[in-house]
Amino acid sequence: MFYHDKELQYTVRVDRPNPAFARMLQQAIGGIEGEIRVCLHYLFQAWGTRGPVKYRDMLLETGTEEMAHIEMLATAVALNLEGAPTSLKDELAQDKIVGAVMGGMDPRHFLSAGLAAMAVDANGVPFNGFWVVGSGNTAADMYANVMAESTGRVLATRLWEMTDDPGMKDMLSFLIARDSMHQNQWLAVLEELGGVQGVHPIPNSFPQSQEVQQFSYAFVGTSVNDLGTPNGRWTQEPSIDDKGEFHVVKAQPLGGEPKLAPPVPEGDAQVEQMTLTDTIMGNIKDTMGL
Amino acid sequence: MFYHDKELQYTVRVDRPNPAFARMLQQAIGGIEGEIRVCLHYLFQAWGTRGPVKYRDMLLETGTEEMAHIEMLATAVALNLEGAPTSLKDELAQDKIVGAVMGGMDPRHFLSAGLAAMAVDANGVPFNGFWVVGSGNTAADMYANVMAESTGRVLATRLWEMTDDPGMKDMLSFLIARDSMHQNQWLAVLEELGGVQGVHPIPNSFPQSQEVQQFSYAFVGTSVNDLGTPNGRWTQEPSIDDKGEFHVVKAQPLGGEPKLAPPVPEGDAQVEQMTLTDTIMGNIKDTMGL
Amino acid sequence: MFYHDKELQYTVRVDRPNPAFARMLQQAIGGIEGEIRVCLHYLFQAWGTRGPVKYRDMLLETGTEEMAHIEMLATAVALNLEGAPTSLKDELAQDKIVGAVMGGMDPRHFLSAGLAAMAVDANGVPFNGFWVVGSGNTAADMYANVMAESTGRVLATRLWEMTDDPGMKDMLSFLIARDSMHQNQWLAVLEELGGVQGVHPIPNSFPQSQEVQQFSYAFVGTSVNDLGTPNGRWTQEPSIDDKGEFHVVKAQPLGGEPKLAPPVPEGDAQVEQMTLTDTIMGNIKDTMGL
Amino acid sequence: MFYHDKELQYTVRVDRPNPAFARMLQQAIGGIEGEIRVCLHYLFQAWGTRGPVKYRDMLLETGTEEMAHIEMLATAVALNLEGAPTSLKDELAQDKIVGAVMGGMDPRHFLSAGLAAMAVDANGVPFNGFWVVGSGNTAADMYANVMAESTGRVLATRLWEMTDDPGMKDMLSFLIARDSMHQNQWLAVLEELGGVQGVHPIPNSFPQSQEVQQFSYAFVGTSVNDLGTPNGRWTQEPSIDDKGEFHVVKAQPLGGEPKLAPPVPEGDAQVEQMTLTDTIMGNIKDTMGL
Amino acid sequence: MFYHDKELQYTVRVDRPNPAFARMLQQAIGGIEGEIRVCLHYLFQAWGTRGPVKYRDMLLETGTEEMAHIEMLATAVALNLEGAPTSLKDELAQDKIVGAVMGGMDPRHFLSAGLAAMAVDANGVPFNGFWVVGSGNTAADMYANVMAESTGRVLATRLWEMTDDPGMKDMLSFLIARDSMHQNQWLAVLEELGGVQGVHPIPNSFPQSQEVQQFSYAFVGTSVNDLGTPNGRWTQEPSIDDKGEFHVVKAQPLGGEPKLAPPVPEGDAQVEQMTLTDTIMGNIKDTMGL
Amino acid sequence: MFYHDKELQYTVRVDRPNPAFARMLQQAIGGIEGEIRVCLHYLFQAWGTRGPVKYRDMLLETGTEEMAHIEMLATAVALNLEGAPTSLKDELAQDKIVGAVMGGMDPRHFLSAGLAAMAVDANGVPFNGFWVVGSGNTAADMYANVMAESTGRVLATRLWEMTDDPGMKDMLSFLIARDSMHQNQWLAVLEELGGVQGVHPIPNSFPQSQEVQQFSYAFVGTSVNDLGTPNGRWTQEPSIDDKGEFHVVKAQPLGGEPKLAPPVPEGDAQVEQMTLTDTIMGNIKDTMGL
Repeated sequence: MFYHDKELQYTVRVDRPNPAFARMLQQAIGGIEGEIRVCLHYLFQAWGTRGPVKYRDMLLETGTEEMAHIEMLATAVALNLEGAPTSLKDELAQDKIVGAVMGGMDPRHFLSAGLAAMAVDANGVPFNGFWVVGSGNTAADMYANVMAESTGRVLATRLWEMTDDPGMKDMLSFLIARDSMHQNQWLAVLEELGGVQGVHPIPNSFPQSQEVQQFSYAFVGTSVNDLGTPNGRWTQEPSIDDKGEFHVVKAQPLGGEPKLAPPVPEGDAQVEQMTLTDTIMGNIKDTMGL
Repeated sequence: MFYHDKELQYTVRVDRPNPAFARMLQQAIGGIEGEIRVCLHYLFQAWGTRGPVKYRDMLLETGTEEMAHIEMLATAVALNLEGAPTSLKDELAQDKIVGAVMGGMDPRHFLSAGLAAMAVDANGVPFNGFWVVGSGNTAADMYANVMAESTGRVLATRLWEMTDDPGMKDMLSFLIARDSMHQNQWLAVLEELGGVQGVHPIPNSFPQSQEVQQFSYAFVGTSVNDLGTPNGRWTQEPSIDDKGEFHVVKAQPLGGEPKLAPPVPEGDAQVEQMTLTDTIMGNIKDTMGL
Repeated sequence: MFYHDKELQYTVRVDRPNPAFARMLQQAIGGIEGEIRVCLHYLFQAWGTRGPVKYRDMLLETGTEEMAHIEMLATAVALNLEGAPTSLKDELAQDKIVGAVMGGMDPRHFLSAGLAAMAVDANGVPFNGFWVVGSGNTAADMYANVMAESTGRVLATRLWEMTDDPGMKDMLSFLIARDSMHQNQWLAVLEELGGVQGVHPIPNSFPQSQEVQQFSYAFVGTSVNDLGTPNGRWTQEPSIDDKGEFHVVKAQPLGGEPKLAPPVPEGDAQVEQMTLTDTIMGNIKDTMGL
Repeated sequence: MFYHDKELQYTVRVDRPNPAFARMLQQAIGGIEGEIRVCLHYLFQAWGTRGPVKYRDMLLETGTEEMAHIEMLATAVALNLEGAPTSLKDELAQDKIVGAVMGGMDPRHFLSAGLAAMAVDANGVPFNGFWVVGSGNTAADMYANVMAESTGRVLATRLWEMTDDPGMKDMLSFLIARDSMHQNQWLAVLEELGGVQGVHPIPNSFPQSQEVQQFSYAFVGTSVNDLGTPNGRWTQEPSIDDKGEFHVVKAQPLGGEPKLAPPVPEGDAQVEQMTLTDTIMGNIKDTMGL
Repeated sequence: MFYHDKELQYTVRVDRPNPAFARMLQQAIGGIEGEIRVCLHYLFQAWGTRGPVKYRDMLLETGTEEMAHIEMLATAVALNLEGAPTSLKDELAQDKIVGAVMGGMDPRHFLSAGLAAMAVDANGVPFNGFWVVGSGNTAADMYANVMAESTGRVLATRLWEMTDDPGMKDMLSFLIARDSMHQNQWLAVLEELGGVQGVHPIPNSFPQSQEVQQFSYAFVGTSVNDLGTPNGRWTQEPSIDDKGEFHVVKAQPLGGEPKLAPPVPEGDAQVEQMTLTDTIMGNIKDTMGL
Repeated sequence: MFYHDKELQYTVRVDRPNPAFARMLQQAIGGIEGEIRVCLHYLFQAWGTRGPVKYRDMLLETGTEEMAHIEMLATAVALNLEGAPTSLKDELAQDKIVGAVMGGMDPRHFLSAGLAAMAVDANGVPFNGFWVVGSGNTAADMYANVMAESTGRVLATRLWEMTDDPGMKDMLSFLIARDSMHQNQWLAVLEELGGVQGVHPIPNSFPQSQEVQQFSYAFVGTSVNDLGTPNGRWTQEPSIDDKGEFHVVKAQPLGGEPKLAPPVPEGDAQVEQMTLTDTIMGNIKDTMGL
């Protein structure tokens, strides 16, 4: 279960409120690269962990920390919205900067939230529960986590580049540091689980003998001409998981043309879909002497 | 640009059509772990690649291959739906198996699609463009790709476990093999980009001197008591990116209590939100002798 | 900021795992009446509170408690999924009960989550950030909260009716009790804010003199004949907010027919939309002797 | 503005309630082929009509009728849910039919709605405002309407095939008849607007001289080999709009390889994306003797 | 069933068209606080009402009125869009005001709708059928309605503050008045149903003896230290429903640590998840002398 | 299966990059009128075609071409974003044009994608798999296709009007030409399938004798007074499908008032919903002497 403290994990200070930056920060709250996502990532993974309990415990620790990050960002949004323009009156014509700012801010920050944060992204599109990944396979989950912290840190550094407000830069420098740790943290679990050669191909519990093995380490070139296939580490030498040898094959159709049955009568296709098919079938029967 | 062939990349054969399995296969088409996602992942990453052009070329090769996988799965869905029950008439009472199957299939396979595949997941929830990740940072994208192929291969192996139809098992064995290759392929790019120590923390172009560095490699324990912090590779020794030393700190609030301004009049809060605030402000003024 | 404890707030025990009930419980996690919603409701309201700080403090207390409820329900889902059928093999034909259960469970519980909870509702539709209400008006927010706890308690009692598993009934009895408290808690804030007569119409800071007042307390009957208007407390006596007198008026069009300008040329309407309009305009000009 | 009547437009009678059929009917309420869609289609088109006012008037007439269809279907759902199983107790084991029905019904019909209709489709996915088409081009809108009534009638006939309840068959026979009329109604507008040759290509107000005209009536064959191009009305003879001559061309790349600039520094790509590009640029400079 | 009139319920006049205000008005059409929502709220509640028929009749009256409000707002959007900039040509550089307005308007108003209203919110996010609440419990529904009219009136007053167009202010003054009435109307039903003490806890048909009663009126404090619990009406005196006595308890974990079974083999977790678990189980067996 | 070429189908040249236009182009990629939609339309229709195989073959040809259109537009977005402002620093105050452009662009183009295209529309709302129509009825599908190419060409011409960049105008002129062809192409299939009189009412395989035929060709007037019914082709003469005669009828309720059963006890309605109903039922019984 959970507890709280009225104080923030780290200082949130806004020196010059900027409602357009408030909108940008929403991406780090309710966006697909944002903190609600990683928070629920880690908590749902913890609650569903089957296997070694220490991963569950660790996921709970960090999922709880992420709650505090959402709180920091929500506070930063509210502070950036103080003094925001809330009018489309004549100032729009007279003061072009108001129009620009109004155009750049999320109008729902005023209309729906009264100058506070929402569970949406920088375009006002809501957070979505499908982004929460907990697959039941710890290695797959760790890659989901590394990926989330990587796109999350890219977002945070871009926000850092975008502002020159010292308070906001300081807050983001803290969050960027945490993303550095968390990338390393999930990589550390992958190392414990056997490292790249131990964990791949994920899931490593499925017997590779059941694969169509001539395609397990083949780079399939789909270029229509011969110029396309780019060489790289992925076309030669042992595979990264050390269980095969990379090589290149040209794409070829092995599956023939698919053939579907005619429509069923109760499916209410057009008559012509049925008739023509009957004709074709008739032809076939004729050919076969039936 | 793109070309096609009327034939499939690999054999799609259904020995005993099963409309409930058709529903399951939808997860691999329009689900978050599915093939539309990886196809658009690779193509959008290719179209937006800035930097070495060989990654663009390679992403195009594999994005194009994934089109063929969607096609195989869509064909498999259509074939599994042949002979599906399309009635809720008296058979429901008389033949319990019809009810069970009808309950287990996606009714929209009949109602909306006339016994064919759709761009949805196993619960009929539509594919969503937000799942397509192309961040502009190649290393972050590669982790998104490893993650997609990992959850994708976990899904494919579970589908393989779920069926005993030899045709479906064969098709899935091919797709599982391709996922093995693709996990390795994206890891190979990460190796080319410098390996774990070279690419992390992602983005590696942001100067770590700008982070709040005492938190860059600290595991923050949020347990309310002292029993919680689990030891592991993430609490000791050099960090995985070899740029710091893992250590543990107990969570502490460094940010104080946040203070927001009172509501603006045009925001139409309740009067009491304003009045009470005025009172508080009055108190402050009194204290200050104003 | 936030802290956690490895233990649950209340016992979660499943005596007879039932994967179909696991699906039902998802409604209380990621559904619109569920616990992720109320948790984010209270936390976002807290983080955006402008005005008396004691409401912020109280919202934080209860938002944090709701985290523990999500955790309890996620645990209950995972426990109900133990032993779930994960196959569509021949058993389907031989053991009808497997088919029924498989039809009744969410297949993504196995395919996507490996027998654990997800951030979705009972039909696998994801949680959505738009459900999180924080309007900046405390009274409106309190009604959002009463509503959420009312539909939430209705859901919980229906789940209680649906199962006869003693462990699940016990867990739900706890959650139902908490919903009783929380309904009362938000009503208590409304009482503090002035009670029904004090808070309404919400927002109470907007001057009612600016309304078109003859319609402020009129029940507008839209029945096409005279039989329709139902009498009730809303058609007579002083209004509930005691600021007007209820009365009935029959719906009448006061606004005339709307007239839009013809399409702009760059909007690429059909030529006929422009031509016919010109003709009509020509007619008008003729009539006017222009 | 709008008025109502307490009575239904046509009889809604359910002889044998069937909760699984209630779920199917939801597709005709909140599904993409359903009545909320066409209702809002016609009303939003009416409210936005620019040009001849008679189309506005007609759209209002029919949009209002569609309200009555939603009402009929919502009533049919409620009646089909009477007597639905609301329990997962021991009956599941003892009475397989209950399990089957429970698996086949939408559990939210009980959990969220107390045995009534919702604004969702047959899988519980919500109605979505993007399905409402009003383009500002009357001809495009009419095709949207013909399409909606065509997929709508296909859905209604499939529902008719699926049930043998006389009351439900009767209700559906009425709705199917209305769809026949409405398909004809929108085609009649297209005839008034000039017929196929008059309205196409839509928008007909854009000068075709601005098109890259050699591609305006060319069927582009994308087959990788020469066997693929299927002959039909679309490969020969004057085009349907009579403004060109159908012919076939083989797909050829006319656009060269795209070249994007290197990443901007503040975009925080990986260093290698920048470095390698610098190298390449260096090479170019060397070659150019700079 | 439903009827219409070509005239509007109340005057819709736009003195100075403002495309940015058109965007704001979309929130009141297709936004979560908007009129499509309340319209479908009342109609779906009416169609699903079980119990006293007079509530059904009243809901139909008001649901039908809301149709007219959508129509008024859609007309207001179309009128505000007349004269909107539809170009990103050189004017952008020359006339900063055009750029500001273009930035502030919804580009889809031109691109998708030809200068007319859409079923979306102020950020172009579509209306969503999940916002339509009809729970089957009349009291819960009434709170949903009070909440919708409260957030709706807050939105309408904010829109009123935002504009100085006399026509728009007049139209909004009418809608604000209707919201005053509707808040009172739903409260009147709650009074008829027994008032606060009669209706709570909702549902009042569930026996409170089945709750874990020591938690039914307890404010649970989750603060990690003792300073957090805020006093208020909710911590003392009889509860608002008069069925208990408010009191405060400190959060304590009563549920122990959850324990999940190891992953099933066919779930394709990582081998290490299974192995380590076996080891742990082995240790337990050793300890137990097995 | 599919193949690709590194070159584009047609030239994509941007003479003056404009990040606001990049946002507009997103509507043609991931918007409801965009190219991802038509691409998946044609491919899913092909993969699900039952009946004459030549339609399958043709759909594959054109679905593959649409892939190349997405690629062209994605490239155009990336090129328009080169040089985009990526800062909200003091320039905002100093250089109004930066603010205007920043307000007009999609911030996620920088924050999430590093200046590249995404699978979203002009407001950043994601592509959605429900827009992909494949009904199993070829005629209905063809109308879906004509509609998609009609709204698509309207969008493309509006984009053409909006820009004066010669490169962008040239690219759009190509896409507009392809839309002309594709409108004709799907109309050609409808001609092959029997023309308007042959294909309607869709589905033509459902026996019209099963319709409530007096309503099959009746225009139902829902005006509350007699002034409303607009005359047109749809009120007189033979119907467009030549299977009936258009005529007008005034809307009349034929279905009586619906009656639902009282709530079931386990549905946890309010007691008053049950009690009052019992009372009413009691009254009825009294009246009937029971």
